Amino acid sequence: MRIIGIDPGLQRTGWGVVDYKKGCPKHVANGVCKSDSSEPLALRLADIFSQLEAILTKYRPDTAAVENTFVNRDAAGALKLGQARGMALLAPARLGIEVYEYAPNVVKKAIVGSGHAEKLQVEEMVKMQLSGVVIEGSDSADALGVALCHVFKGNFENRVREALIKADRKNDW
Amino acid sequence: MRIIGIDPGLQRTGWGVVDYKKGCPKHVANGVCKSDSSEPLALRLADIFSQLEAILTKYRPDTAAVENTFVNRDAAGALKLGQARGMALLAPARLGIEVYEYAPNVVKKAIVGSGHAEKLQVEEMVKMQLSGVVIEGSDSADALGVALCHVFKGNFENRVREALIKADRKNDW
Repeated sequence: MRIIGIDPGLQRTGWGVVDYKKGCPKHVANGVCKSDSSEPLALRLADIFSQLEAILTKYRPDTAAVENTFVNRDAAGALKLGQARGMALLAPARLGIEVYEYAPNVVKKAIVGSGHAEKLQVEEMVKMQLSGVVIEGSDSADALGVALCHVFKGNFENRVREALIKADRKNDW
Repeated sequence: MRIIGIDPGLQRTGWGVVDYKKGCPKHVANGVCKSDSSEPLALRLADIFSQLEAILTKYRPDTAAVENTFVNRDAAGALKLGQARGMALLAPARLGIEVYEYAPNVVKKAIVGSGHAEKLQVEEMVKMQLSGVVIEGSDSADALGVALCHVFKGNFENRVREALIKADRKNDW
């Protein structure tokens, strides 16, 4: 299974691709899509969208995990962020890739074990989980964190499901 | 010149197409793109985007005018709106159509003459300007208002430019 994590932003949209095979996550690639703040908004959004489309076409992930960004900011900032976030949701959806959303505290809890972890702690844990990874910047560290969060949560939920099925079978006489 | 006006929203995105020939605006079409609130967000956005793409491909406007929505609301609402607004900006930009943004008070001022006009006043003026128009709903009335705003502002600015050129020629001896 291949997962892309995306941490959206108008100036910098972080992305990170992770493979998950036999219970072990493996780093594939990570980077940052930037947009030129001197360009009109519509062109900046089109630029982010094209960059994401190219990344998705190159790495062909099965699943996308997008950070459901922290909204405790002013409405004008949230509107800007929402526009960039729209690109991060649309690009995989248009290619038929299933999109999951994770709140930052869910990501932190999945990676570090606490919903109140610091950004640096997340980055350290991402590096520990993905041996040999070279991280492009804090935005792509966050994106890799979201991808890992999907892996861990999916894995955890599958394990619970398997355990329940087993327990069910035991009771099934 | 053909202009599409767009009033973005996650549930309902209004649109209206207006032709402008020889100083006179003429209604072409208007409608509302809806998204199914029971669907995941990424699919709703993809749905809005596809509907807008189909409308733009059908009517082939030269210019798009998008309402720069009022942001005096809570951050969570602004984030949602931003995501829908991203679709309204991206769809024309991807097709190489120039995108302009107008704040609601600018639209009201251009249509009614006051930045504090009521929605109904705008709708009445849109009906007066576009004879015979049948408006699909209040969202498409707003969208037609944005399109007319672009016509009036563009026209006004062109007239000022022409007047300045004439004045300049007079002084040029």
